Amino acid sequence: MKIPVIRNILEANDQLAEINKILFKQNNLLVLNLMSSPGAGKTTLLERTVDALKDTIRIGVIEGDIQTTSDAERIAKKGVAAVQINTDGACHLDSKMIYHALKEIDIPSLDLLVIENVGNLVCPAEFEVGEDHKIMILSVTEGDDKPLKYPLMFSRSSVLLINKIDLLPYIDTDVEKIRRDSLGINPDLEIFEVSCRKQDGLDTWFNWILHRTPKYKSK
Amino acid sequence: MKIPVIRNILEANDQLAEINKILFKQNNLLVLNLMSSPGAGKTTLLERTVDALKDTIRIGVIEGDIQTTSDAERIAKKGVAAVQINTDGACHLDSKMIYHALKEIDIPSLDLLVIENVGNLVCPAEFEVGEDHKIMILSVTEGDDKPLKYPLMFSRSSVLLINKIDLLPYIDTDVEKIRRDSLGINPDLEIFEVSCRKQDGLDTWFNWILHRTPKYKSK
Repeated sequence: MKIPVIRNILEANDQLAEINKILFKQNNLLVLNLMSSPGAGKTTLLERTVDALKDTIRIGVIEGDIQTTSDAERIAKKGVAAVQINTDGACHLDSKMIYHALKEIDIPSLDLLVIENVGNLVCPAEFEVGEDHKIMILSVTEGDDKPLKYPLMFSRSSVLLINKIDLLPYIDTDVEKIRRDSLGINPDLEIFEVSCRKQDGLDTWFNWILHRTPKYKSK
Repeated sequence: MKIPVIRNILEANDQLAEINKILFKQNNLLVLNLMSSPGAGKTTLLERTVDALKDTIRIGVIEGDIQTTSDAERIAKKGVAAVQINTDGACHLDSKMIYHALKEIDIPSLDLLVIENVGNLVCPAEFEVGEDHKIMILSVTEGDDKPLKYPLMFSRSSVLLINKIDLLPYIDTDVEKIRRDSLGINPDLEIFEVSCRKQDGLDTWFNWILHRTPKYKSK
């Protein structure tokens, strides 16, 4: 009984994700779905990205959290449009939550929409929300066994940001193993090594975004 | 439609968890359900715990991972019984998985059974498996906002191990805020600050286990 129920939930989700995607395309928007374990650095990456790009492109953010509005408050302080979704227990964002959140955002006025998912290395990767790209962050403090243990997110992402590289001298993580195992799962994955806290290695990431933002390229 | 389905899944899970619990009680076993985000240090804590206690009490381990058998191999090297459950995509262990894994373990020969859940700060806390206590680990590298953002696991755990305290000089995490917010959610939570890597602060944890192991106390 369980498997058909889950299949129906995923199919209903995919259908609404297609509607979101049409809306995004009509408005010529780049949409990124940002995923990671709790505390890997999604919100700090977003803060750095907004600081670097907000004078060049118009950015909107949807924050997904089980509870609290602290992440949306952090982003709103940077002067960009931020909407908080509280999932009230749910471990991931789905296309219906995004569909409803879009009513709170002036989509035509944006060039880039970033959706920060719930902190969870498993479930968010299963649910399309209409994004152009899935982006994942792995903190080096999580260890080098994560690609093989949680392969789905690595297989579906376009970019892997390996974060907190400033902590490498104090831990035992082998970044080359992370690279090797990630590319074994997904040979097309683009990998950037960064420290969001120390603002190190982020320029390649900022350029990656700009070169995929339709309204920036057409300027 | 969705909510009744989820309620039925949780009720079916709880019923089988009760059966597991009866089996554990009949055999006078202490059973711990160990949960955390990916990479917070569950397996390393288990390695340290087995090293410290295996000459005093008889320990068995059930390892839960989406894929790979690497954690069970790490534990088996320590000379204790270890069974690996691969959830094949599922983001948590449930009571049915544990029920089937128990066929592979000689329960009457054990004093302590530790169930290492899938790395996920959300879903594992929703599913009883028949354990005596939920134990959670939070790495200081995950940040001090986690209790308020992921309250369920904090509210249901008996012990919170705050791990990787050796990294505190290199990050911005406020351990007092973690303590304060965790106790605000769950005033009965016992909190130990440890570094599994540096083997720091673990004696209190080892004693916590021994004083709750029925067969050790009755010696």
